[in-house]
Amino acid sequence: MRLLPLPEESLSHIAKIQAAFPEGCDAILVGSNANIYYTALRFFRGYTYIPAKGDPVYFVIRPLGFEEQPGVTYIRKPEEIPARLREMGRELPATLGLEQDTMTWSDISRLAKALENPLVVNASPSLRRARMVKTPWEIGQMKDDGLHQAEAYRRFTKAYREDMTDVEWQIELERILRLEGCLGYSRVSGQLMEINLGSVICGDNADTPTPYEFAMGGAGVSPALPGGADGKTMRPGTTVMVDMNGAFNGYQTDMTRVWRVGDIPEKAYEAHRCSLDILREMERIGRPGCPAAQMYEAAMQIVKERGLEDWFMGHRQHASFIGHGVGIELNEMPVLTPRSKDILAAGMTIAIEPKFVIPAVGAVGAENTYEVTPDGLVALTIFPEEIIAL
Amino acid sequence: MRLLPLPEESLSHIAKIQAAFPEGCDAILVGSNANIYYTALRFFRGYTYIPAKGDPVYFVIRPLGFEEQPGVTYIRKPEEIPARLREMGRELPATLGLEQDTMTWSDISRLAKALENPLVVNASPSLRRARMVKTPWEIGQMKDDGLHQAEAYRRFTKAYREDMTDVEWQIELERILRLEGCLGYSRVSGQLMEINLGSVICGDNADTPTPYEFAMGGAGVSPALPGGADGKTMRPGTTVMVDMNGAFNGYQTDMTRVWRVGDIPEKAYEAHRCSLDILREMERIGRPGCPAAQMYEAAMQIVKERGLEDWFMGHRQHASFIGHGVGIELNEMPVLTPRSKDILAAGMTIAIEPKFVIPAVGAVGAENTYEVTPDGLVALTIFPEEIIAL
Repeated sequence: MRLLPLPEESLSHIAKIQAAFPEGCDAILVGSNANIYYTALRFFRGYTYIPAKGDPVYFVIRPLGFEEQPGVTYIRKPEEIPARLREMGRELPATLGLEQDTMTWSDISRLAKALENPLVVNASPSLRRARMVKTPWEIGQMKDDGLHQAEAYRRFTKAYREDMTDVEWQIELERILRLEGCLGYSRVSGQLMEINLGSVICGDNADTPTPYEFAMGGAGVSPALPGGADGKTMRPGTTVMVDMNGAFNGYQTDMTRVWRVGDIPEKAYEAHRCSLDILREMERIGRPGCPAAQMYEAAMQIVKERGLEDWFMGHRQHASFIGHGVGIELNEMPVLTPRSKDILAAGMTIAIEPKFVIPAVGAVGAENTYEVTPDGLVALTIFPEEIIAL
Repeated sequence: MRLLPLPEESLSHIAKIQAAFPEGCDAILVGSNANIYYTALRFFRGYTYIPAKGDPVYFVIRPLGFEEQPGVTYIRKPEEIPARLREMGRELPATLGLEQDTMTWSDISRLAKALENPLVVNASPSLRRARMVKTPWEIGQMKDDGLHQAEAYRRFTKAYREDMTDVEWQIELERILRLEGCLGYSRVSGQLMEINLGSVICGDNADTPTPYEFAMGGAGVSPALPGGADGKTMRPGTTVMVDMNGAFNGYQTDMTRVWRVGDIPEKAYEAHRCSLDILREMERIGRPGCPAAQMYEAAMQIVKERGLEDWFMGHRQHASFIGHGVGIELNEMPVLTPRSKDILAAGMTIAIEPKFVIPAVGAVGAENTYEVTPDGLVALTIFPEEIIAL
């Protein structure tokens, strides 16, 4: 018999979901991968049934092995759920929360029908809100991610050889990360982030607009996946921005650093210093109670004082955020945008990435993942932030 | 100005979708990543509008750069589509096809509202059917994938060193694939295939049930991603099944081969021979007109004649298919299952993977990706199929 790991921690996640329940909702039936993991701390195929009050039921389809675990009920398909709930003496929910923002139209329709056509409400916002503030255990996981990610980054310079292409160097960085324990797969929210182990963008490729929701662009090597490294040789006089994956344990951190090939112009250093100054200001003002939009505005003000707006968060195409929550998924709540309504709270974990694209030179700037604490932001990704020579 | 690649090929895909249109449907608005790529041969953020007859419109949100391309109209959000269609003198569809099986409930709802609440029908089956039979160009792409994948597999043995863990060897295989041009990201259909560059399963780990929809299991190294290699040292007397990624150009091939550490028992060779015999039989009977279910039954009959049912497609947990379509996504139509209603047609591309799990030894069997031709199946993955010594 296998064990569901950390039942107390899972129950604390369930309690957070219950505290964020949609109004009038009797139960949420969780079915997306990230939220299955969040509610069980193990990925299984099936559903986590969360009543407004009381214990959850894990309806497991696959794998075998958890038959005698508390709270686990095996089913072959979701249509069996009502009978099982009745056997447990539980009433079927009159109002059911489903993950309408992440599950397919067909899956949502099937689940609604399987649960005998309750009134369905969207549970996605509640789940995002619950996951937005991390528990101490979750922050511990992410601290661990940050340590491993920094340990890998430490070895990146040594993997460079002259006349490498960006893709060739990226492949060595992927190997270093994997040998450090990176899982080789990272969860993201939505369909606009097709990436696996991260992005390496060199020189003018940083100025190629991308269809994706990443802060930076890049042409990629195929029109099928137009983002990131484009396979060109890394030339003197350019920067190389490295935003590689920090997923080691089901959670992840997000960190960007910049390398350079040969000498780069002063304007690149100037923009990079601006990025670090923004990070310092964010660390100072990023306390519980601070509106996310205010973080964005404070960053923009520094950018404007330096006259660097044209290069900020892209040049030909601009991204409209400077940071985002991170956790089980790479892109969680809150998002640091001018129109965000989110307010920082202790225990949030946020990646902040003020980046600049300098035409003909490349991208500069740094990104850290932070924990929001009463004393400001505390970095989980601890690694020198200056531009590193290759 | 950037160019949309291969407009004639894209239009042939559009024509195939139009030939498979849902009954009574006036237009399909495509929005999923795989189908955006299928209809434009370039991934962009936006929508491909396909009328029942006539030319498509590519509604592009991002990236910039295709402004003057024929058929391209830039929008900021889908709510602008009706006005643009009217400007073009096109009527709004009364019945609209949307990808209900792949897009989220919220996205489908938003698109239906944006298009002024037409009658919505599910376009996913039509798109799956159109993509199921490949064009000569698509098969050319997949032949290219197969050549690269085989070239990478040729170098796998040399990357092995004694006392490596399965994860360590897999990392070297990932590097070899990437250096051969593998894109490092592969599209899959549905949420039950969380994997990136493939799977390496050694010894008893092959008998660990997985929640995923893969043919084989494995514990993985984290309960967050319980599939594939488990990080144990590869020990003499075991097999190592290698099912690594073949995505080099927007399409992909799927190929599995088996290596061994030291001597393995005769029963492993016996089951492996059975797998190869099944592949030969599949190649012979897999002609246009052959029902997919009959392929499955023919394979099962060989397995039963040899008395190997207990090990076929898993041991503690069994998979209920022996093959699947492959193309832009790793898992396409048709699926070779006992209850499939699909009939083979020339131009389909199918991965067939008769595999056995032998307790305490590991997994054996081979997988090839095939083109269905009038003369039977022709392999796109050409590489020796015998068990290879490490």
